Amino acid sequence: MEHPCDKVLACCRKIAQCSQTPGETTRTFLCEAMHDCHRALRGWMQSLGMDSRVDAAGNLRGLYAGSDPAAGRLLIGSHLDTVPNAGAYDGVLGVVLGVALVESLAGKRMPFAIEVAGFSEEEGVRFGIPFLGSRALVGRMDETLLAAEDGAAISVERAIRDFGLDPAQLPAAVLDPHTFAYLEFHIEQGPVLESMNEPLGVVASIAGQTRLAVHFTGQAAHAGTTPMSLRRDALAGAARWIARVEEEARSTPGLVGTVGRLETKPGAGNVIPAEVSASLDVRHASDEIRTRAVDNLIAIGNDLALDRGLGFRIDRQLDQPSVEMDPALVSAAARALQKTGCRGHRMTSGAGHDAMILAEKIPSVMIFLRSPGGLSHHPEESVLPGDVQLALAAGLHFLNGF
Amino acid sequence: MEHPCDKVLACCRKIAQCSQTPGETTRTFLCEAMHDCHRALRGWMQSLGMDSRVDAAGNLRGLYAGSDPAAGRLLIGSHLDTVPNAGAYDGVLGVVLGVALVESLAGKRMPFAIEVAGFSEEEGVRFGIPFLGSRALVGRMDETLLAAEDGAAISVERAIRDFGLDPAQLPAAVLDPHTFAYLEFHIEQGPVLESMNEPLGVVASIAGQTRLAVHFTGQAAHAGTTPMSLRRDALAGAARWIARVEEEARSTPGLVGTVGRLETKPGAGNVIPAEVSASLDVRHASDEIRTRAVDNLIAIGNDLALDRGLGFRIDRQLDQPSVEMDPALVSAAARALQKTGCRGHRMTSGAGHDAMILAEKIPSVMIFLRSPGGLSHHPEESVLPGDVQLALAAGLHFLNGF
Repeated sequence: MEHPCDKVLACCRKIAQCSQTPGETTRTFLCEAMHDCHRALRGWMQSLGMDSRVDAAGNLRGLYAGSDPAAGRLLIGSHLDTVPNAGAYDGVLGVVLGVALVESLAGKRMPFAIEVAGFSEEEGVRFGIPFLGSRALVGRMDETLLAAEDGAAISVERAIRDFGLDPAQLPAAVLDPHTFAYLEFHIEQGPVLESMNEPLGVVASIAGQTRLAVHFTGQAAHAGTTPMSLRRDALAGAARWIARVEEEARSTPGLVGTVGRLETKPGAGNVIPAEVSASLDVRHASDEIRTRAVDNLIAIGNDLALDRGLGFRIDRQLDQPSVEMDPALVSAAARALQKTGCRGHRMTSGAGHDAMILAEKIPSVMIFLRSPGGLSHHPEESVLPGDVQLALAAGLHFLNGF
Repeated sequence: MEHPCDKVLACCRKIAQCSQTPGETTRTFLCEAMHDCHRALRGWMQSLGMDSRVDAAGNLRGLYAGSDPAAGRLLIGSHLDTVPNAGAYDGVLGVVLGVALVESLAGKRMPFAIEVAGFSEEEGVRFGIPFLGSRALVGRMDETLLAAEDGAAISVERAIRDFGLDPAQLPAAVLDPHTFAYLEFHIEQGPVLESMNEPLGVVASIAGQTRLAVHFTGQAAHAGTTPMSLRRDALAGAARWIARVEEEARSTPGLVGTVGRLETKPGAGNVIPAEVSASLDVRHASDEIRTRAVDNLIAIGNDLALDRGLGFRIDRQLDQPSVEMDPALVSAAARALQKTGCRGHRMTSGAGHDAMILAEKIPSVMIFLRSPGGLSHHPEESVLPGDVQLALAAGLHFLNGF
């Protein structure tokens, strides 16, 4: 008999072949290839006695009935869309693990129903807006979202129709009111569990995030004829600020601060830079610590610019509060991990996930699987078979804990 | 009567209208517009009794005979080509001042002949190789240079033919063997004279120059999920190095160090930078000080990279020694400036000039005119009429000093 964890990995790899771009894995919101992806999962769901449908937001929904209609419903899910040239596990693994958990029950019914959801959109690739799928479950797929357009001027609403779905049915995509909890398995997409030699971790919170564009303005001048004392070099100022971003983040536990993008104008080797535009990404589980750090970095930028005769301004692009996972579910998940021999390590997710959206309405928790090399959003993204096996075992303990 | 300095400025502005690009001043090596530029200057030269020709390298050469054939020849010149969207004075002013000096003699003959040269190419825009014009005068327009191609795959040789000239005549472009000195007027293109409130300065040396491309290599990773302690951020390392470049240059008198170009990959706000490529431009009048500074900055880059688990490598693109102007001519020029009431300030040119090339063969000196705002390579580049008047007066004192 095929081992359950092998079946999970094989299913993820099979779905990775459903792609809008030949030779790689790319599956954006309701692309044609999403039909194949749904077909593969619905076949498996139906073989387990699950009812399946695709809701009006393009989410795959599979329902495994419980034995006690009064016991409500547990939702297990993650997303089925991918970034361009993706790996095989980001998102998909969480959906496949949901179906595999139902299979592990071997026909046994829990008192509560189990709904497995494969969200149509989490990455935000097609419309520049993430979490389209899970927003529909919390009733937030509104007119503004439906009117958003992709690069080809196709709206979300039109994309839904083109996939053969009816936006008028969106109310039926909303969570069943008896849903009592949400569980999401996801690869960590970072190096923490690997560095701890731990297969699994429980997400206790999803970090809040601030994104800024930062602009330093100086004066372009000839690199050979302008003495150091008469320069207003935007890059020399920006460089000191970038060093301070790193210092601030290193000295604040749990804080991450990143300057990932930097542009220099005019950008010639023999011209002193007149303008630098840089990105700043700051994240922390505590909104207070994050906000204080961002304020501090803005003040540092202002001071540096003032000292150097530079202009300094920021554009605030994102201020997203942190989201706490449900404490009781976090404890339950940690206990489930411990029953498999894991430590039940509690961690902060630095990346956003559908669980942030679901947590608005129902108690939610995530279980992370170690990411070898911390690698994700890359064709070589992977997961260890033994870790998948432990995740299935922990999932069963979690189900039995209610 | 028109004041000589007004005539100089009017001539420069007229030549600025000879452009290969409508609405701006752009005149690269032997473009069609160079014919109009030559025509304007040859008309003036002929009216002064000068013999004029265009040599096989496209240099305009005007000869004002002396009264004593044994007294040799003084060369006065600068370049007639421009950068794209240039100002009206960079290069052209030095040629026009040469002709205006001859006019100031009002028909009087010096014992020595005066040759005014308008070099065809100094900026290196068309072929990526600077000083094509003056190289021909020192006999360095060789096969390799003639074979160099522009962006349209037209060789230097072909461009010469297309302009109506014969490359076989290049030997006749070489300096007359009786030429005893070279004088070049040029706008400073920097802020030093303006900051000293001085109209004119004497260039005692042209700084040597090192250009490197510097590469830091780290590891791309998710900005949210990768703790600070597990990062190998190429930009955080490069930023500290850029700060050290500035410190090193500030703490070494006369040294300038510039990072003008910087590229970050992958260049997304939420991805830790894996690669940074930056330019380094270091200049000093002393080759020893420059070389030591560059070695030190490379060692600092290596150390920073080692500390941070980054890769570090450099590509050496240019190592150009400094060029001393002739000490006797520098003294003579300083005396000439003092006779006009200027201090006779001696300075280093941070930019390269045709005088670097001529100095290989004959005693050479440059006189800088103050650049308002330090501005050059820009349509708003300017020069003050009073400074042009002083330059003409100083030039006459210089001529009378031999």
